[in-house]
Amino acid sequence: MNQQQLFEQIKKKQSFLCIGLDSDSKKIPQHLLKKEDPLFAFNREIIDATHDLAVAYKPNLAFYERHGSKGWLSLEKTATYLKSHYPEIFIIADAKRGDIGNTSTLYARAFFENMDFDAVTVAPYMGEDSVLPFLSFKNKWVVLLALTSNKGAFDFQFLKDEQSGNRLFESVLKISRNWGTTENMMYVVGATKAEKLKEIRNIVPDHFLLVPGVGAQGGSLKEVAGNGMNKKCGLLVNSSRGIIYASPDTDFAGKAREAARSLQTEMKELLNHAGLI
Amino acid sequence: MNQQQLFEQIKKKQSFLCIGLDSDSKKIPQHLLKKEDPLFAFNREIIDATHDLAVAYKPNLAFYERHGSKGWLSLEKTATYLKSHYPEIFIIADAKRGDIGNTSTLYARAFFENMDFDAVTVAPYMGEDSVLPFLSFKNKWVVLLALTSNKGAFDFQFLKDEQSGNRLFESVLKISRNWGTTENMMYVVGATKAEKLKEIRNIVPDHFLLVPGVGAQGGSLKEVAGNGMNKKCGLLVNSSRGIIYASPDTDFAGKAREAARSLQTEMKELLNHAGLI
Repeated sequence: MNQQQLFEQIKKKQSFLCIGLDSDSKKIPQHLLKKEDPLFAFNREIIDATHDLAVAYKPNLAFYERHGSKGWLSLEKTATYLKSHYPEIFIIADAKRGDIGNTSTLYARAFFENMDFDAVTVAPYMGEDSVLPFLSFKNKWVVLLALTSNKGAFDFQFLKDEQSGNRLFESVLKISRNWGTTENMMYVVGATKAEKLKEIRNIVPDHFLLVPGVGAQGGSLKEVAGNGMNKKCGLLVNSSRGIIYASPDTDFAGKAREAARSLQTEMKELLNHAGLI
Repeated sequence: MNQQQLFEQIKKKQSFLCIGLDSDSKKIPQHLLKKEDPLFAFNREIIDATHDLAVAYKPNLAFYERHGSKGWLSLEKTATYLKSHYPEIFIIADAKRGDIGNTSTLYARAFFENMDFDAVTVAPYMGEDSVLPFLSFKNKWVVLLALTSNKGAFDFQFLKDEQSGNRLFESVLKISRNWGTTENMMYVVGATKAEKLKEIRNIVPDHFLLVPGVGAQGGSLKEVAGNGMNKKCGLLVNSSRGIIYASPDTDFAGKAREAARSLQTEMKELLNHAGLI
């Protein structure tokens, strides 16, 4: 999927919602545990109930790897289900991978070829040659970690480079924006750092940003949109727990839809306010 | 396994060799492709042929994920085989993971509980709360990326912090050494940066270092030992391609043994020279 196609979906659905499929066998409704593949059964119901309200889904790999090869099978089935039933949806493997070049190529193949994900999250520590292999796949995206939503973001991401005066997350943005284009790179910017979005927009005005941390982690959607929206929206705002665990009972899919609808309604207003729809 | 037990193994085997199981279906001897699980069949023969010459094995996850859930099954079988046949061997999941706290806990469970790995490589970008969950498992280890062996290491790892004067990899070492102890943390330092090992030893004199990049990537074992060895050896030097692909034929296991023997002989001399055996 290219940037324009993603923007078209945002306008059509009046939503820039990404739903995080952090599907935890301890938190999903317990009646699903009797199913042959509980994680996939859960994901399928969540997806069916919310697909018209979200433009993207983002399974976090840790929740699947937790179950080893069986969990990977649930992930593969989820990706296949999304691509075959809802091909217009953008799917992100939240894997935070990154390794020396020939090894990153194998990760890229795992996510882009075997499972047809549209994007993979990648950690920047190992630099350009750990990221480039992901950028050589047509219409596929790297979502590079820039400024994360957790407390540990303050350990290294704010260190200020003596020579350039840039903080590390700014160096990551300024250096890496030359590795790819606005058609194959996005950045992770936590909603808990929404006040930084203005500065980040000065560095990468046209890139899409994937923004986690709205809801359970405390970020404000209005503040994110106010500081981060650009002329093609440029935002995918992720919500996981607030949607997928809206109810622990058999009504979980309906309640997930209500939670997603509530965010989508707010997003529609923000898109409207920005003159994008 | 604790640090003293690892050192005992090093003395007993007169080796600080780690063999990287970067098992690539395109590079393994082609007669193995007829087997039900070629990657596992390959790994098992390599392990059986070299287990007395190496103290550690390190499967890189990308080579397994490349094959999806089937590849994960090969990885699980490899870990189980190692632990059941050679329990004295230290096994490292080269996964370069790292995520917000609750998510890192799931990665830790995947590797430490489900598969009984002794250690996982972790990327430092997201800071303390992305690493701590891995450190709460008894006798398990984090191997944190500090200075990697690839060209991209120069993009961010050498940026110099204005306030402390530390380069990023030095900040990673100095800040993270307080998160755990010498009993649950190691660091990745590429052999291609062997001249930096002296400086790194000033910061973390007693930690074990995992050193990739000897052989195919060009690092020198003698230089690594000269600059990096401490009183408990403190080094695990990894070789992957040079050993596991020593021959593309049916004699691959024997040739792998010869290549491992050659490194182990050199290591024995270096340990001897240092008065450790």
